[in-house]
Amino acid sequence: MSLSTSGYGLRTARPEDIPHILALMHEMAVFEKLTDIFQATEASLHNSLFGEHPAVKCLVAHTHDNPDVPVAYIMWFFNYSSFLDRRGLYLEDIYVQPAHRGNGLGSMALKHLARLAIEHGCGRFEWVVLDWNQNAIDFYQRHGAEILPEWRIVRLTGDALHRLAQQTLEA
Amino acid sequence: MSLSTSGYGLRTARPEDIPHILALMHEMAVFEKLTDIFQATEASLHNSLFGEHPAVKCLVAHTHDNPDVPVAYIMWFFNYSSFLDRRGLYLEDIYVQPAHRGNGLGSMALKHLARLAIEHGCGRFEWVVLDWNQNAIDFYQRHGAEILPEWRIVRLTGDALHRLAQQTLEA
Repeated sequence: MSLSTSGYGLRTARPEDIPHILALMHEMAVFEKLTDIFQATEASLHNSLFGEHPAVKCLVAHTHDNPDVPVAYIMWFFNYSSFLDRRGLYLEDIYVQPAHRGNGLGSMALKHLARLAIEHGCGRFEWVVLDWNQNAIDFYQRHGAEILPEWRIVRLTGDALHRLAQQTLEA
Repeated sequence: MSLSTSGYGLRTARPEDIPHILALMHEMAVFEKLTDIFQATEASLHNSLFGEHPAVKCLVAHTHDNPDVPVAYIMWFFNYSSFLDRRGLYLEDIYVQPAHRGNGLGSMALKHLARLAIEHGCGRFEWVVLDWNQNAIDFYQRHGAEILPEWRIVRLTGDALHRLAQQTLEA
């Protein structure tokens, strides 16, 4: 799989990309102020992308001059809508290094993912955005996406998750 | 897999449950005012649950007196967090028929799913809620879940999704 736009190419990630992808992931965590929950390592990422049961799919973008050095990464997986009773394509991450923004990479990535969604018979292409990231919201809306105002994410993690799981044994 | 609470049992869905599950799904769509997007049929649901590549996992709850008639259903799948670099458990639907509410079924289901999440090595157990469904929000918070205020769902679907996908051919 390979696509290109004005000096850039997009391709499926390879094992040798992992150190670069991990560095880009950490840059993104810094931007989103989420380094406190960042736990990815080269070994864990190798397992998630290339292990026996991959948890996620990854694409990287690169300049044509330097195809071995990713400057952006995309991670996605299939979700599911019960009411549509169809798979969806869920975009977990899209990150473009600041020096490479404004060159159409994000737009190329969204179009490519929309095409993948259609090819896989998905009813939706979805992701999430922080409500203070107006630049991102504007960008997504220019590509035809709608922001759903009513839904909130509910999360159980860490000690709270373990405590609730433990109650199945005590009941 | 089988669990029980005060007169109810919880088990993995079987093909013969499909007509009951579909009826429960439609009841839920009515409650959520989302019948306009409801497209599930017995055939599509059979494929999603029991096809060659199942898209989602399904549990049903029943009374001990009538184990063949589901009165609640739960659908879930694995998602993925890049920053944790671990799978998560995503709860797509939980629906309990009104006549069977207040008997601990929802609580049993959340505890069971929390336990499944831990057993599968998941870092999170997540789902979404409508911001006007205060009863549900209160219920989830009593079980240790947090509501994330900042994230919004972004969605491309229908014509907008097809239009964006089409642009990969025109570029």
